[in-house]
Amino acid sequence: MQRTLIKEVSKNIGKEILIKGRVINLRKMGGISFAQIQDYTGAIQTVWEKDPGIKMGDAVQVVGEARNDERAKGGCEILSKEIEIISTSIEEYPFDLSKSILHLQLTTLLDNRALSLRHLNVQAIFRLYDILLKAYDSAMRQEDFIEIKTPKILEAPSEGGANFFKINYFDRNAFLAQSPQFYKQIMVGVFERVFEIGSVFRAEPHFTTRHVNEYISLDAEMGFIDSFRDVTVMLTKVLRHIFETLSAEGGQYLKLYDTEISKVPEEIPHIKLAEMKETISKKYKYTIPEDTDIDPEGERLAAKYAKEEFNSDFVFLTHYPWKFRPFYTMPSRENPEETYGFDLIFKGTELVTGSQRIHLYEELVANMKKKGIKSDNLEFYMNIFKFAMPPHGGWGMGSERLIQQVLGLGNVKEAVLFPRDVKRLSP
Amino acid sequence: MQRTLIKEVSKNIGKEILIKGRVINLRKMGGISFAQIQDYTGAIQTVWEKDPGIKMGDAVQVVGEARNDERAKGGCEILSKEIEIISTSIEEYPFDLSKSILHLQLTTLLDNRALSLRHLNVQAIFRLYDILLKAYDSAMRQEDFIEIKTPKILEAPSEGGANFFKINYFDRNAFLAQSPQFYKQIMVGVFERVFEIGSVFRAEPHFTTRHVNEYISLDAEMGFIDSFRDVTVMLTKVLRHIFETLSAEGGQYLKLYDTEISKVPEEIPHIKLAEMKETISKKYKYTIPEDTDIDPEGERLAAKYAKEEFNSDFVFLTHYPWKFRPFYTMPSRENPEETYGFDLIFKGTELVTGSQRIHLYEELVANMKKKGIKSDNLEFYMNIFKFAMPPHGGWGMGSERLIQQVLGLGNVKEAVLFPRDVKRLSP
Repeated sequence: MQRTLIKEVSKNIGKEILIKGRVINLRKMGGISFAQIQDYTGAIQTVWEKDPGIKMGDAVQVVGEARNDERAKGGCEILSKEIEIISTSIEEYPFDLSKSILHLQLTTLLDNRALSLRHLNVQAIFRLYDILLKAYDSAMRQEDFIEIKTPKILEAPSEGGANFFKINYFDRNAFLAQSPQFYKQIMVGVFERVFEIGSVFRAEPHFTTRHVNEYISLDAEMGFIDSFRDVTVMLTKVLRHIFETLSAEGGQYLKLYDTEISKVPEEIPHIKLAEMKETISKKYKYTIPEDTDIDPEGERLAAKYAKEEFNSDFVFLTHYPWKFRPFYTMPSRENPEETYGFDLIFKGTELVTGSQRIHLYEELVANMKKKGIKSDNLEFYMNIFKFAMPPHGGWGMGSERLIQQVLGLGNVKEAVLFPRDVKRLSP
Repeated sequence: MQRTLIKEVSKNIGKEILIKGRVINLRKMGGISFAQIQDYTGAIQTVWEKDPGIKMGDAVQVVGEARNDERAKGGCEILSKEIEIISTSIEEYPFDLSKSILHLQLTTLLDNRALSLRHLNVQAIFRLYDILLKAYDSAMRQEDFIEIKTPKILEAPSEGGANFFKINYFDRNAFLAQSPQFYKQIMVGVFERVFEIGSVFRAEPHFTTRHVNEYISLDAEMGFIDSFRDVTVMLTKVLRHIFETLSAEGGQYLKLYDTEISKVPEEIPHIKLAEMKETISKKYKYTIPEDTDIDPEGERLAAKYAKEEFNSDFVFLTHYPWKFRPFYTMPSRENPEETYGFDLIFKGTELVTGSQRIHLYEELVANMKKKGIKSDNLEFYMNIFKFAMPPHGGWGMGSERLIQQVLGLGNVKEAVLFPRDVKRLSP
């Protein structure tokens, strides 16, 4: 007998069929047993007139009659006749997967990741993540960006600073990419518009609810721009496509988190960082510390302001200070202490960092000098600016943080399948 | 005046338009100058009645009249009036990009990657690569596989052996993933069908025409299979979608390499490795060395046989020996010296490695012991087999090698934007 996929059961009412999948719920009522079975296309209730003799989590094969049942989810169920246990547990689950909400400590959730992921609510996070990846890809392709894959093992750190991991690369040292920055800029000189979905690695030693040491960055870079505004306009289009797709295809997963997808406004408000800081100080009586561009509390208040003033869950903070931005960021022509760098704040947290980049060799060299950046091992990057690079800019977006913010998860690690932090290298 | 994209020029015949892009060819004939301009949507010829005063490679903005011209590629050109140089080179190109073929040594090609990539023939490789990424993604989604992203920093090497890179991870050692093997198997226990497009890192110390130390692996893993044949059948479907998409959308790039896309047969021939070795020995008088499963010459001859006997550019070699396959590969039930592991040979080179995996805890532990594999830091992986893993299998496919073989490139490095080998960490 051939396998029927669970999504096809409703087309087989009255027929005897065979399904395969995992038992994700099990209960008894008045002598009748109910086992919910999940395969990769959906879940369905199987009904048993006698105890099927199975355990939660078993991988099984069931033969039975598909029938309509209004009370059942999806409108149908299987009146079961035979069962074969394909694979069973030889140990007890460390928690009860049949509960509607798991309520685990983050550590327990992550230490037992292979099992906690089997809970429908946890699965939902990564089904949305899957939709996000698809939506980013299709948004970028719609705008004729070419997908590229750039190296993650580098001769020199890509963002400078101290937040890089060192590798033993045969007989010498190398570094893990903190971003695809240099390479996506090089590729603007080739394809004009490029995007990348790839791993980035940050050796940040701190524990926060929104940092992990390895994540997937959604990057893009585009040429022949008139100003950084061309970049924020493109990003707005891409975000609209992503959020509309999440809403259209992720409804059942969003419902589990009792959340709705934010509307991306026609134009996301743009506010200069310096002005926003003043507003925050006046309106909310909070002063952002001097040693940072903006702190998490500042981001939260900027979002509050955008919500109150513009009814927007998104706000671009623009013209970040020169001293807090990397050497490749174009300084503002109006005020050299500022740059054409921006962040996008989404529901109170930085989601995207972007900017117009310097595209002229002499300006780049001067800016590096001013910042005290050595050119060792960066010649391959600097040299491209000797060969007619067009004005360009781009962004890097944290994919897991987007899902965290959409679902209101307390920690970004919940949106990473197998997160890495200072202490966690396993599973 | 707003920018007109080059792909839109033919819709603006008779109008004055403005285009932006890079000068990718420049020539003079009888006092008239021709400059080919490329933007991210295409390339077009601009015609000048006087010298436009530009150099090869300049980033420019041109105003002129769009007009039909049968002789021009694409059927139209621009009779140009004004030009503005947006960005120009301050150094000479190290080679002549206007030649129809570059004819560079591999080292020169790669040392000057940012510039050699500007040649149309080199660009074509990565436009096909972009189509490949899209096609793999859509093929997997059509079959309801969920896209996952798994960590590249690991506590233990994923494939064992010595071919791993070591990282300084805060106060301890970690390893770069040689494959997503453990994690995609874990995820079969969650979603049943998963795929990943991600970086893998192999510290192989040798130089060959088909190895790089960092590449993009196209992975998949599927549950509830009856045998490894379910995996090869799925892979055949996916390959058919990929090759049909490359053919449908990549025609103009394939033409530059004077190549046609191989037809994926309805059923790709499956031949046991041991039988193939015998055939090779008898038919081609070549003996594969004892210390390997199959060597490159063996793969070449296996492909020759498949072409001669089945008119197929593809052949599955199956039942690889137990001693040459990793500990997670399921040993054959008929002959414990063999496994349910296979390779797919495409045009004479291994393109995919796959297998059915062991899914029972006791069998895995026994196999690890027999192979002398220590379980240190692998408990997170081994433990999942205590929790009802279904029979499953999957594959890993080298994305760059696929493009290498499709185009007949002499070295896989030509199909990697910025390749990494023992000596090369830059650009």
